[in-house]
Amino acid sequence: METVIAGDVVDKSNAAREQALKADYAVLGEQLDRRGIAIDAILKKVEAFGVAIPSWGVGTGGTRFARFPGPGEPRDVFDKIEDCAVISQLTRATPTVSLHIPWDKADPNRLKQAASRFGLGFDAMNSNTFSDTVGQKLSYKFGSLSHADAGVRRQAVEHNLECIEIGRTIGSKALTVWIGDGSNFPGQVNFARAFERYLEAMKAIYAELPQDWRLFTEHKMYEPAFYSTVVQDWGTNYIIAKELGDKAYCLVDLGHHAPNVNIEMIVSRLIQFGKLGGFHFNDSKYGDDDLDAGSIDPYRLFLVFNELVDAELAGAKDFQPAHMLDQSHNVTDPIESLMLSAIEVQRAYAAALLVDRKALEGFQEANDALMATQALKAAYRTDVEPILATARLNRGGAIDPVSAYRASFYRKKVAAARPAGAAGGGGIV
Amino acid sequence: METVIAGDVVDKSNAAREQALKADYAVLGEQLDRRGIAIDAILKKVEAFGVAIPSWGVGTGGTRFARFPGPGEPRDVFDKIEDCAVISQLTRATPTVSLHIPWDKADPNRLKQAASRFGLGFDAMNSNTFSDTVGQKLSYKFGSLSHADAGVRRQAVEHNLECIEIGRTIGSKALTVWIGDGSNFPGQVNFARAFERYLEAMKAIYAELPQDWRLFTEHKMYEPAFYSTVVQDWGTNYIIAKELGDKAYCLVDLGHHAPNVNIEMIVSRLIQFGKLGGFHFNDSKYGDDDLDAGSIDPYRLFLVFNELVDAELAGAKDFQPAHMLDQSHNVTDPIESLMLSAIEVQRAYAAALLVDRKALEGFQEANDALMATQALKAAYRTDVEPILATARLNRGGAIDPVSAYRASFYRKKVAAARPAGAAGGGGIV
Amino acid sequence: METVIAGDVVDKSNAAREQALKADYAVLGEQLDRRGIAIDAILKKVEAFGVAIPSWGVGTGGTRFARFPGPGEPRDVFDKIEDCAVISQLTRATPTVSLHIPWDKADPNRLKQAASRFGLGFDAMNSNTFSDTVGQKLSYKFGSLSHADAGVRRQAVEHNLECIEIGRTIGSKALTVWIGDGSNFPGQVNFARAFERYLEAMKAIYAELPQDWRLFTEHKMYEPAFYSTVVQDWGTNYIIAKELGDKAYCLVDLGHHAPNVNIEMIVSRLIQFGKLGGFHFNDSKYGDDDLDAGSIDPYRLFLVFNELVDAELAGAKDFQPAHMLDQSHNVTDPIESLMLSAIEVQRAYAAALLVDRKALEGFQEANDALMATQALKAAYRTDVEPILATARLNRGGAIDPVSAYRASFYRKKVAAARPAGAAGGGGIV
Amino acid sequence: METVIAGDVVDKSNAAREQALKADYAVLGEQLDRRGIAIDAILKKVEAFGVAIPSWGVGTGGTRFARFPGPGEPRDVFDKIEDCAVISQLTRATPTVSLHIPWDKADPNRLKQAASRFGLGFDAMNSNTFSDTVGQKLSYKFGSLSHADAGVRRQAVEHNLECIEIGRTIGSKALTVWIGDGSNFPGQVNFARAFERYLEAMKAIYAELPQDWRLFTEHKMYEPAFYSTVVQDWGTNYIIAKELGDKAYCLVDLGHHAPNVNIEMIVSRLIQFGKLGGFHFNDSKYGDDDLDAGSIDPYRLFLVFNELVDAELAGAKDFQPAHMLDQSHNVTDPIESLMLSAIEVQRAYAAALLVDRKALEGFQEANDALMATQALKAAYRTDVEPILATARLNRGGAIDPVSAYRASFYRKKVAAARPAGAAGGGGIV
Repeated sequence: METVIAGDVVDKSNAAREQALKADYAVLGEQLDRRGIAIDAILKKVEAFGVAIPSWGVGTGGTRFARFPGPGEPRDVFDKIEDCAVISQLTRATPTVSLHIPWDKADPNRLKQAASRFGLGFDAMNSNTFSDTVGQKLSYKFGSLSHADAGVRRQAVEHNLECIEIGRTIGSKALTVWIGDGSNFPGQVNFARAFERYLEAMKAIYAELPQDWRLFTEHKMYEPAFYSTVVQDWGTNYIIAKELGDKAYCLVDLGHHAPNVNIEMIVSRLIQFGKLGGFHFNDSKYGDDDLDAGSIDPYRLFLVFNELVDAELAGAKDFQPAHMLDQSHNVTDPIESLMLSAIEVQRAYAAALLVDRKALEGFQEANDALMATQALKAAYRTDVEPILATARLNRGGAIDPVSAYRASFYRKKVAAARPAGAAGGGGIV
Repeated sequence: METVIAGDVVDKSNAAREQALKADYAVLGEQLDRRGIAIDAILKKVEAFGVAIPSWGVGTGGTRFARFPGPGEPRDVFDKIEDCAVISQLTRATPTVSLHIPWDKADPNRLKQAASRFGLGFDAMNSNTFSDTVGQKLSYKFGSLSHADAGVRRQAVEHNLECIEIGRTIGSKALTVWIGDGSNFPGQVNFARAFERYLEAMKAIYAELPQDWRLFTEHKMYEPAFYSTVVQDWGTNYIIAKELGDKAYCLVDLGHHAPNVNIEMIVSRLIQFGKLGGFHFNDSKYGDDDLDAGSIDPYRLFLVFNELVDAELAGAKDFQPAHMLDQSHNVTDPIESLMLSAIEVQRAYAAALLVDRKALEGFQEANDALMATQALKAAYRTDVEPILATARLNRGGAIDPVSAYRASFYRKKVAAARPAGAAGGGGIV
Repeated sequence: METVIAGDVVDKSNAAREQALKADYAVLGEQLDRRGIAIDAILKKVEAFGVAIPSWGVGTGGTRFARFPGPGEPRDVFDKIEDCAVISQLTRATPTVSLHIPWDKADPNRLKQAASRFGLGFDAMNSNTFSDTVGQKLSYKFGSLSHADAGVRRQAVEHNLECIEIGRTIGSKALTVWIGDGSNFPGQVNFARAFERYLEAMKAIYAELPQDWRLFTEHKMYEPAFYSTVVQDWGTNYIIAKELGDKAYCLVDLGHHAPNVNIEMIVSRLIQFGKLGGFHFNDSKYGDDDLDAGSIDPYRLFLVFNELVDAELAGAKDFQPAHMLDQSHNVTDPIESLMLSAIEVQRAYAAALLVDRKALEGFQEANDALMATQALKAAYRTDVEPILATARLNRGGAIDPVSAYRASFYRKKVAAARPAGAAGGGGIV
Repeated sequence: METVIAGDVVDKSNAAREQALKADYAVLGEQLDRRGIAIDAILKKVEAFGVAIPSWGVGTGGTRFARFPGPGEPRDVFDKIEDCAVISQLTRATPTVSLHIPWDKADPNRLKQAASRFGLGFDAMNSNTFSDTVGQKLSYKFGSLSHADAGVRRQAVEHNLECIEIGRTIGSKALTVWIGDGSNFPGQVNFARAFERYLEAMKAIYAELPQDWRLFTEHKMYEPAFYSTVVQDWGTNYIIAKELGDKAYCLVDLGHHAPNVNIEMIVSRLIQFGKLGGFHFNDSKYGDDDLDAGSIDPYRLFLVFNELVDAELAGAKDFQPAHMLDQSHNVTDPIESLMLSAIEVQRAYAAALLVDRKALEGFQEANDALMATQALKAAYRTDVEPILATARLNRGGAIDPVSAYRASFYRKKVAAARPAGAAGGGGIV
C-alpha cells in the first residue's frame, strides 16, 4: 500500500514524542484502573473507529461574500483522493472518502484504483441537485426533487440513480440526499404539495436502491436567504424515512438545527425508533458554520457520543451509524483541519466510553441529578489524548499529525504542482 | 340566557359606532367585490368561528420573579366562568371555556350549570402534573408521566383519568396533556428510557378515553431552567400521536418552539399527516412569553391561518382543529387582553379567507415567487375590522368590546366583591 | 430627463387603475378624517420620502452553495444605473443609487453623467475589503482594517480613501464601511488587539473625510463560518462612532442581529445618543437573509419606523438617517423586488405617521399597556396603499409598478442585449 | 473560627483520597513541567481565587409554573449564612456572601457577626425593585427606576440608598442594580423617555455611593413575558456606566444574552474600555436558565476566563472583576450545586492560566488559526482537578466536597430543625 508522506518523516516525528507518550499512557492507565476501567479495551475500540472524509472538504471553502483559496488546492478528484490519503496515513482514523457527484465525476474504475492504491475505501455517495452544472438541461433554481415541474423532478431522480450506479462500481453502500429545495418568501410554495412531490420522487429513487444499500436523507433548517426548506427538521426527516421503508434512515448534520436545540436528544429519538443513519460532524457558533468538529462546543460533541455509546452498549436495533465529517475550511489548511477534526470525533468517542454507565443508571433511578451529570463530566474531563495518540502510533500513523505533516512540506510540494485557484467575491453586504 | 354586562351599556356603546361601521362595511364590501370576493360569505364564516378561553387566563400571570395581581381577581372557578361570560358576551367569539384540574376542581354539575347559565360550553380538559398540590401523595419534582418511579407515573395517570371523568360530566370532548417532565442537566435522565415510560403511561390514559373524545399532546422546547423536556418538539409529538392511535393528535402552542422556527410549516406537516389537533394561541418575542395573540408578529399568525384555511377549503382529512387562547396577562386587565386576542385570531382567519387561492396556485406553479407572496400580502393588508365588528354586532356583542367593557365598570364592581390577591416575589436574579 | 420605460406603457397601466384609486383615496381620506388625520399631509410626507437603491441589488444574488442568474443581468455599472432608473421611474421613491467599489469602478464623470441623465443622484459610497480582487497586492483572507499586518491595513485604508475620492466627484456625501474581519475559531485573533488596530485604521480614514460628509459603520453579528466579527453589534458600533468623532454614525442593517433581538430598541438608543446614521433595509427569517423589506415580519419594519417618526416629530438632535435597501434577490426579478421593497419601506413610514402620538403618550403615562399597543396597531392596520399609489401617480410613476414593468417587457429587451450570466455552485453541504 | 461540618468528617473523607491526589498532582506537575509550566505557581493563584455565594442561591429555585422545595430550606438570612459557611468550609473557594435586600434584611451588626463567626465577608449588595413586598407603599408592577411616576422612582432610589447603608455597616464595597423594568407590548413604554428616567434615577443613587464603592449595573435581554427591558444588552449597560462615572461598571451575567451571542467578546470589549465590573456565573441551554456554572457549555466558561487571564497578565486598566455565582437550583441540593459550581469556575480559571500565551500571540500574528485555537484547547483539555483539590486540601477544605458533605448528614440535620417549605404552582401552561 502506497503512502504519500515519506515514512522517515513520520518516524522522526514520532521518535521525538514516543517516550513521553508511553509515560502518559501508563499513567492514564493507572488512573483509569483506579476507576475500574481497562485502558487497553478503550484503545482497541478507538483503533477500530473510523470517520469518512468528504472529498469536497480538502478544498478551501468560502462564504456568500468571498472565497480565499490556499496554495495547492486539489484540481480534481484524484488530487482530492491524494489529500485524503495524507489524512488517513497520519491519523489512521479516516479509512474512507465520500464523493460528491457531479463534482467528483470520473471513470469509476479509475476512482476505485486511485483510492485502493492508498488503502482507501468509499463511504456514502452524495448527489447534488442544489446547484446547476454546465450542460444541465433544466435548472434547479426553483427546486429539484420537489419542483413544480415533473421534468425537473425526473432529471433530479435520474441524477440520484446515476450516483447509485457510480457508487455500485466503486463499492459504496449508501446514498446521501440533501436538497436545497425550499422557498424564499411566504406563499412561494405550497408546503404540502411540495412535500408530496418530494416524497414521490424519493420513492422513485428508493425503488432503485440496491438491496444492501442504505438511503440517508439530511434535514436542514435553512439556507441563508430562505424562508422555508422542504426537509427542515428531524420530524420531517423521520416521516420521510418511515414513508420510504426499512433501508431509509435520517442523517444528522450537527449544524443544521435551530438555535439552542438539544441535538443529542434528537439523536436519542432517532436511535430509539430505529432511524438514525449517521452524522455529518462539524461545529458551529451561529448557523450552518461548518467549522471544525469540536472547535466551538466540545461538550456537545461528547454528549452526542454519550448517546451513541449508550446505544452501542445496549445493542440498539438497526444501529450502525455512518460517521462523516462535513466541514468548510476557510482559513486553515484543509488537511490539517480534517486531521484534527477526525481526532476530535475520536476523542468524544473515547471519552464517552469512559462513562461509568452502571453508576449513571443508578443516579438516574435515584433522581440524583448532581451525581448523574458529574458521572458524565468525570468521563469528559479525562484527557484521553494518550489513548488517541497510541492508537495512531500502533497503526502506523503519527503521534502528532500536524507536526509530521508540516515537517513533510506536503503543501509546499503540491502547491508547486497545482496552479493557484481564483479568489472570488460575491455581491451582497 | 343571562348576561353579565347590562344590555343598555352595550347598546349605548354600539349606538355611537354603528353608523360609521355600516359605512365602513359597505365600502369594504365594494372593494372586495372588485377583487371578486363576496363580503357576506366572509362575514358568515367569521360569525361561525370561535376560540376557547382558558380558565386560568382570566387571572393575572407572573414571571419567575414576581406576580403583580390586579384588582378583582377571580377567587375560584365560578368567578372565572363569570369573567369568561363577559368576554363571550362582548365579543361573541368565545363560546367555550377550557378548565384546568385541580385548579378548577368543583362539583361537575355545578360547573355545568354555572356555564350554561351564560350559554357557555366546555372545551378540552387540562390536566396538571407539572406542580404539586396540597394533599398530593407523591411529588412531581422529578417528573410525572415519565418519572423513574412507577408509583408516581400511576398517580399521574389517575389524575388524567379523573380529568376525563369530570370532562365527561360537563360535556368536554377532549383532554389536553402537557407535562413539565424533563431534566436540568445532561445525564440526569436517560432520554430513551424516559420516553418509553411516558409512552407507556400515555397508553394507559388513551385506553380510557371515551370513544368520541380526542387526546391532545402538547410539545414545548423548554421551561426556563431546563436542559431537556420529554415532549420537546413536533417530531416527538408526532411520534406520540402515531403510537397512541387515531384519537391522538398534536397540539401546537405558538410559543413553544426554538428561535426562528417556521411554525406554519409544522402546522402544514401535521395537517398533511392527519395529526393536527389544535392550537394554543398567543405571541412571543423571546421565549414562551404567552403574550396576547398577534401582539408581536401578526403576520406569523396570519400565515398559520393561511395554512388552516387552505386545509379547510381543500377538505383535508381528519381536520377539525381546536382553537384556544393560552396567554399570561401580567400588565393588562385579563378580560381586555382576552377579548382583543380572540378578535385578533378572528382577524387572522378573516384575512386568510381573502387570499385569492386560485391565483396563488397559479403563481406557485409558475414559480412566480414575487406575485405569490404578494397574493398573501394583498389579503393580509386588507383591514377586515368592519367584518369582525359586524359579526359581533349581528350576534349581540359590542362593536368596540374594550370601550363597552370599560363603560360597564365591571372590573370596579368585582374588585369590590373579590378581595385583593397577594403580590409575590421569587428568588433569582 | 430621460425615462427608460415608454411613457405610454405607464399611462395605459395607470389609466386602468386611476378611477378605483381615486375612490379608495377619497374613502380613506374620510376614514382618517374621522380619526383627526389630514390625508393630504401624509401624502405630502410620503412624496418627499426616498430610499436609495444599492447598485449590487439589481443583480441576482446567491447562497454559499449556488447562484442561479436570471435573464438580462446587468453587465456593468452603467447597466445597473439603467435598471435603477426603471425602479425610480415607476416608483418615484428611489432617487439615489449607492455604489460599491471596486465592483462599480468607472470614470467618475461618466458615472455622474449616466445617473443624472435619469435624474438619479448618488447615496453613500461602499468600500469592499471583504473579498480580494484581481490585481490586488495583499490578500484580505485574514482581515483588512484589523489585519495583524500593517501593510494590509494600509492598503485597506487607501482603498477607502479612494472611495471617498470617487464619491466626492459624483456628489456622494457619505462613506459606508462594512468589513468581513473576524475569526473562525476561538483564539485565532486577540479581540482587543484586533479592535485597537481597527480603530486606528478607521481614524486614518476619518481624518480624510470631507467636512460635509458622514461616515457610517455597519455592525453584523456574524458571517456563516465565523466565530467572531470585529464590529459584532451596536455596542461596538457605538463605541466606534464615539471614538471617531461627530461625523461618525452607526448604520443598522435589519438582518445583522442575534435571534430575537429587539431592533427598534437599538434604533431608539442610537437616536437618543445622536449616533443613528441610517439603515440597510431588508427582512430575514433565520440569519442575514437579505430578503425583501417587510416580506417576513412587516410589523417589525413598522415598529422601526414608529421610532423614526417619533424622533422626526420630536426634532431629535443629529437626526437625518440615510435610508437604503440592501437585499439579495435570488428567485425574483431584482427590479420587481426592489420596487416593491421601496414601497414597503414607504408603507411602514406612512403607517407610522398615522399613530395618534398624543393619545399614545397618554396611555404610556397612565400605564395603559393595552390601549398603548392598540394605538400602534390601529395605525399599522390601516391600509395606506391608496396614499402610496397616489404619491407615485402624482409624481409621474405607476399606480401598480410591477404591472407596468411587466407590460413594458423591459426584462425581455435587456435579456436580448445582455448575455446570460454563469450559474455557479459552491462546495459545502 | 467556627466550622459547621465536624472536622473529623472532613479529615476522614480526605484521608481516603489524599494518597491518590498526591500521586496525581505529582504526575500533572511533571506533565506541565514538560510544557514549561510550574504547577506550584498555578496552585498559588488558584488558592487565592474566590467567588461569592448569593444568599438566595442556597434556597431551592423554581420556574414560572412550580417550585419543589427540598428538605431543610433556610428560614432566614442566618440560616443562609450557615449554609454558605458549609460551602466555604468544604471548598475554600467562596470567602464571601452577597445579600439581597429586602429578602435578607436584618440588623446589620448581627449580620456582620453571623458571617465573621464563620470567617465570611460580604460581597456586593443587591437591591430588589423587581417585585413588591409587604408594606411597600407604591407598586413596581409598571417599573421602578424608570417608572413613569416620579414617586415610584423616588421610592426605588431610596431603597437602593438603604442597601448602600446596610452594606456600609457590614463591610460591602459594591452595589449591584438589576431591575425588571421593561414592557410587555410594543408601544407600552417610550424607550427613550424610560431610559432617560432610569439614568436620572441611577445618577441619584450614584451620587450617594461611598468613595471606595463600585456600582454594578446588570443587563438582561428579557424576562419571560417581556417585549423589551430597559437595560437590554451590554451596549446600553456601557452607556450607563459612561454616563454615571468612574465608579460605575457593567456586570455580566452569562445567561442574559440573545441566542448565539459571543459573550467572551463582550467581556473583552468591556475590559478594553475599562468598564467590566464583574460576573454572575451560571450556565444555560435555552434562556436565563441559571443552571450550575459550566454544566452545559464548559468551554464557553473557559473562553471567558481566557479573556480574564489575558487581561490579568496584561495588567489591564481598572481591572478587578467581582466573581459571583447566580444560579437557581431546582432539582439538586443547593449546597452541593454551589460547591461544584465554585469549583467549576476555579477550573476554568486554572485551565486559562495554562495557556501558552507567548505561543498563542505568535500564532495570532502569523494568522495560524489552527495552532492558535489548539493552544487554547491544549490548556482546556488538561485535567486540572489535582490542582483544585490540592488547593482545597492545603487550605483546610475537602478533597471531594460533595462526598464529605454527604458524609456529614448536614442536610438531614437542618431538615430536622427547619420546617418544610411550601410547594407552589403558578398558572400558565
